[in-house]
Amino acid sequence: MGEFKVIEIKKNVLEDNDREADKVRAKLKQEGTFLLNLMSSPGSGKTTMLVRTIRALKEELRIGVMEADIDSDVDADTIAREGVKAVQIHTGGMCHLDADMTRQGLVSLDTSDVDLAILENVGNLVCPAEFDTGAVKNAMILSVPEGDDKPLKYPLMFSVCDVLLINKTDVLPYFDFDIEACRERVQRLHPGMKVIPISARTGEGMEEWYDWLRGEVAAWRES
Amino acid sequence: MGEFKVIEIKKNVLEDNDREADKVRAKLKQEGTFLLNLMSSPGSGKTTMLVRTIRALKEELRIGVMEADIDSDVDADTIAREGVKAVQIHTGGMCHLDADMTRQGLVSLDTSDVDLAILENVGNLVCPAEFDTGAVKNAMILSVPEGDDKPLKYPLMFSVCDVLLINKTDVLPYFDFDIEACRERVQRLHPGMKVIPISARTGEGMEEWYDWLRGEVAAWRES
Repeated sequence: MGEFKVIEIKKNVLEDNDREADKVRAKLKQEGTFLLNLMSSPGSGKTTMLVRTIRALKEELRIGVMEADIDSDVDADTIAREGVKAVQIHTGGMCHLDADMTRQGLVSLDTSDVDLAILENVGNLVCPAEFDTGAVKNAMILSVPEGDDKPLKYPLMFSVCDVLLINKTDVLPYFDFDIEACRERVQRLHPGMKVIPISARTGEGMEEWYDWLRGEVAAWRES
Repeated sequence: MGEFKVIEIKKNVLEDNDREADKVRAKLKQEGTFLLNLMSSPGSGKTTMLVRTIRALKEELRIGVMEADIDSDVDADTIAREGVKAVQIHTGGMCHLDADMTRQGLVSLDTSDVDLAILENVGNLVCPAEFDTGAVKNAMILSVPEGDDKPLKYPLMFSVCDVLLINKTDVLPYFDFDIEACRERVQRLHPGMKVIPISARTGEGMEEWYDWLRGEVAAWRES
């Protein structure tokens, strides 16, 4: 092993937004709306995955999507073309959403007639993991080109998510990505975490994801 | 075009660390050390690119590397094995480095005998762009699997960088990535920005990058 020094820089970046997050969930419960918080790196395929999910589920669930981005509207436009409700949340430079921003987004979306609300968080594996948005469940996408070592480097993100989608399995032959090694790293951080390899481009593995989502929406309604 | 609402959330996340950054640069100038701040998404190939750069340049330049990560040591270990000085900076959950953290890293690295210091920033296209670290130049990597639309979504990052490396060109046949469209988007945000397509895996395009780096190190010494 090579030699190197390690220096620790401590800094508190967390605001206490837990109470606000609990309020968001209470309101969602009242309205019978399930909120999924979807997180990933830039370019891992969140929007492509969402478009396919909307096409598969929009006849059985009333879907609404909040697209968070620094300042572009490209994703909300893509989603709105699928015929579901969409709002674009401009974070004004913020690298994540907190519970209050999410609350503003839900008000703008108007969730009174929404069964499944999805928040596409800012593309970032660090900051979004630190803030409870008020979502019922957290999902993340890790794409094959990013590498199977990401659980080692962004452990909090993998710890706070309920389900991991390993996306872009259609390009597995061109990258050194070991799905079993990734699963093991994830299980060490978060025992029992659901891991679903998918290709949002080809549709491979997506049925298992839809089933997970259907089950979670039903469980929230009945809870 | 689909219909959707846009809501703006304003929040000031910037601390004024410009004075500290200028102090860092003044000290670097005094010591004749060039500092490069390297930024990208998680998994875009920063460490692989650095390893190849070190192998190519370590006989002509004394190199030191600061690896910033939330809490793993894997990258500093990889770099230290190449026989150059390396320190691991644990950000304690922070999603970026500011000038003071960089100053601490430089002290720990001891730049008195370093010609080229490289800061591998936290993998993130948002927050690191907001903070001047005190580096002489900023470089970023965008990898082919992330998509050619990233300049539209993370405009600040592309605006603050002096050079863009488009990495993983060896997998261009398997992705819808249009290098010319990406170049145009980058030039609209940042006219004159240097764009170099590379494959850190195969070495394609790397000579142009080494030449850019050699030129910048020499210009800093002579300035």
